[in-house]
Amino acid sequence: MKVRIHVSLKPGVLDPQGRAVHHALEGLGFEGVEDVRIGRTVDMKVADDTTDAALDDMCQKLLANMVIENYRIEKLENAA
Amino acid sequence: MKVRIHVSLKPGVLDPQGRAVHHALEGLGFEGVEDVRIGRTVDMKVADDTTDAALDDMCQKLLANMVIENYRIEKLENAA
Repeated sequence: MKVRIHVSLKPGVLDPQGRAVHHALEGLGFEGVEDVRIGRTVDMKVADDTTDAALDDMCQKLLANMVIENYRIEKLENAA
Repeated sequence: MKVRIHVSLKPGVLDPQGRAVHHALEGLGFEGVEDVRIGRTVDMKVADDTTDAALDDMCQKLLANMVIENYRIEKLENAA
């Protein structure tokens, strides 16, 4: 099955990459941008019998930094 | 309004970061992972009168590298 993990910075955590993009958009002349925050997605193809607990475990051990990031697991397709 | 831009590598483009994550997951003992690809999201708060054309323009000029990446614009919330 295909799963997509969304990893985003927790609210309140500074996002220098987002600030840089915000600044660059203004520099390019785009108006009305109020806030920019960058996250990442991890698209995985995993065995159909992969449990939710295993996916959580992957996120907490490797894919997200739990101190400053949140994650959300989305199942895109399930052959089961 | 809030918009979320999803940027992902085009199919066929090598994803070294995804390979590294895949390898690391295997190293941690997770089985059944077949493929990993990394993308990013840009969450923006923009003025309500921002046009779709302007959003496309932002993606093509700055947020995505059109040679190797695709993007998708998702509107999360519209106060209009």
